[in-house]
Amino acid sequence: MKKFSVTPWSVSGNVDYDKLIKEFGIEAINEKLLERIKKQTRDLHFMLRRKVFFAHRDLPRILDEYEKGNKFFLYTGRAPSGKVHLGHLLPWIFTKWLQDKFGAELWFQFPDEEKFLFKKNLSFKEIENFLNDNMLDVIALGFNPKKTFFIVDTIHANLMYKEACKVAKKITFSMVKSSFGFNETTNIGAIFYTSMQAVPAFLPSILKKRNIPCLIPHAVDQDPHFRLTRDILPKLGYYKPASIQCSFLPPLSGTQGKMSSSKLEQETVFTIDSPEEVEMKIKKYAFSGGRATIKEHREKGGIPEKDISFQYLRMFFEPDDEKLKAIYENYKSGKLLTNELKEILIEKINSFLKEHQRKRELAKKQIGKFLFKSF
Amino acid sequence: MKKFSVTPWSVSGNVDYDKLIKEFGIEAINEKLLERIKKQTRDLHFMLRRKVFFAHRDLPRILDEYEKGNKFFLYTGRAPSGKVHLGHLLPWIFTKWLQDKFGAELWFQFPDEEKFLFKKNLSFKEIENFLNDNMLDVIALGFNPKKTFFIVDTIHANLMYKEACKVAKKITFSMVKSSFGFNETTNIGAIFYTSMQAVPAFLPSILKKRNIPCLIPHAVDQDPHFRLTRDILPKLGYYKPASIQCSFLPPLSGTQGKMSSSKLEQETVFTIDSPEEVEMKIKKYAFSGGRATIKEHREKGGIPEKDISFQYLRMFFEPDDEKLKAIYENYKSGKLLTNELKEILIEKINSFLKEHQRKRELAKKQIGKFLFKSF
Repeated sequence: MKKFSVTPWSVSGNVDYDKLIKEFGIEAINEKLLERIKKQTRDLHFMLRRKVFFAHRDLPRILDEYEKGNKFFLYTGRAPSGKVHLGHLLPWIFTKWLQDKFGAELWFQFPDEEKFLFKKNLSFKEIENFLNDNMLDVIALGFNPKKTFFIVDTIHANLMYKEACKVAKKITFSMVKSSFGFNETTNIGAIFYTSMQAVPAFLPSILKKRNIPCLIPHAVDQDPHFRLTRDILPKLGYYKPASIQCSFLPPLSGTQGKMSSSKLEQETVFTIDSPEEVEMKIKKYAFSGGRATIKEHREKGGIPEKDISFQYLRMFFEPDDEKLKAIYENYKSGKLLTNELKEILIEKINSFLKEHQRKRELAKKQIGKFLFKSF
Repeated sequence: MKKFSVTPWSVSGNVDYDKLIKEFGIEAINEKLLERIKKQTRDLHFMLRRKVFFAHRDLPRILDEYEKGNKFFLYTGRAPSGKVHLGHLLPWIFTKWLQDKFGAELWFQFPDEEKFLFKKNLSFKEIENFLNDNMLDVIALGFNPKKTFFIVDTIHANLMYKEACKVAKKITFSMVKSSFGFNETTNIGAIFYTSMQAVPAFLPSILKKRNIPCLIPHAVDQDPHFRLTRDILPKLGYYKPASIQCSFLPPLSGTQGKMSSSKLEQETVFTIDSPEEVEMKIKKYAFSGGRATIKEHREKGGIPEKDISFQYLRMFFEPDDEKLKAIYENYKSGKLLTNELKEILIEKINSFLKEHQRKRELAKKQIGKFLFKSF
């Protein structure tokens, strides 16, 4: 059995999501739960149908409340430390769907101190550039500016630091040590940080002076933060935040680990890549589940499960189940060649990025609308 | 030899200040240094003459800079968690003298999260009341409102949190563990806190965009915080802050430990005490260096070194060396009885507090003038 590791700071190996569910103590999203969601949303996002969002904590409680007319808000975030890539967009696209379907407010945290504290050679100056750049990608996805509030930890510290202290008072070093693998050489800012990440899960309740349920869509590697948050918030009189968790968009190199900007540029498709870069990266680096020769491929067929191009279509770029099924079968039968499959993906990515980049330009004038001021 | 212990959170035993100088690695204030100060100030505050302020770090460097025309600013503070007592006022009175003599700006920090993080049952609501109340005592001492800036950690977190992260990145758990005696059960807010206490030592340099030397007058128990601060600030490109440190005003019960609001109310004279309360506390609780009977006292004389009333006169209420000397000699010779000595102190404290309480009332309308806004 292959080994894998999932922490908020790195993901490696061939992630066994069933095993992760047991290890983390999260719950798989089953058909019954999908039916409950569908009752409210009428359709199911393909990321739910295909179990890209595969696990949750307390989602039924959020639906109970919603059915009683007690709306939840969404909370997710992005620690700016580099360019945004496709792996980042995946949960945000789903979050926008949730916002639309449930009419939910979204509190989007940009913890600009996180990577500063965790990366040795990163300065606040560099982070500030990434912060503004990353905001464009979020805005470009089309979140409702009237219902979406950007919170930047250092800019909104007046709202957040005091609340973070309330959380911090209930978390000991020994708790973060085991949750995050800290030790005696960990810096005291990194040790404190999880308290800041907890705050947006109850900040709207403070600002609106009533207790509002919170749902956090996020990639499963962030679960240790929110596990702590869930332990603490009821002690402060707030709802335990619920979560809905997705698997990782793999890097181009293969189905191990996750797409990450800390890896080689070639393993990652960034949102500002040109059509030529995308084409080159997919053609040159996207791991293929095809066979060594065309002859062998036609005979034995490809392995879509291992093929990055197919996986990107499944997880992100081909929402139509019928079309995806046809691609799957044609590839598995050997009818569809690796190059042809890659062409399909390249076209899909480039058409997505063309539109995304256009909206990204427009977003430059919209940051002010999204930054939270006050009610 | 008696044992004693001095940490930022408690002082106990008969403090041996010579030993403390060696343990902490601070420097005694010697006659040569006093002469240098006197050159600038023309006279010497009695707290300097009498070695109430007895130690320092890097004070000569501050004077070097001052002589070159490079003015320093002062930084001190108060963690609100109870009523202000005479022990708190002592270093602040000296700080005002420094402000007047050196024309220095004073940055006065109210770290309202500190005691919240370190005291189990203290809420932010209680602290907020103390905060406003404590500010009155500071203002009442007559600091120059044009040169004095109050910084409240949770109110000014927008200015402070990012800077605190820069400090925190350079401090490991193992460093705070040894400096403050933390362990695995210490909460992560308390672990982070020292970074916030470091910020006012370079905040004016940031706000004014030039590097300004900093002098911190404080009671010696806070030295562990500033020792860390001194290690870190040069790494961030700022001056190592200098400090000037005082001994503790003892509690009424005797010359062990320090006056503290965590002790019994009877051991402490608060700034809002009535003349009757002061009289009662001094008469009933102020430890006497007198003898068991008047006869014995007349014969053998009192012991001013052990007498709390005499110590309060020496450290705080009798600035006139001649008068103090006369009291000392009369008490030592047995001419002055304990009751008479206590009457002298009661009159001094009550006349001080009458004026202080009057200014405290006026201060209620001045808080806004002292709270830092921006330049």
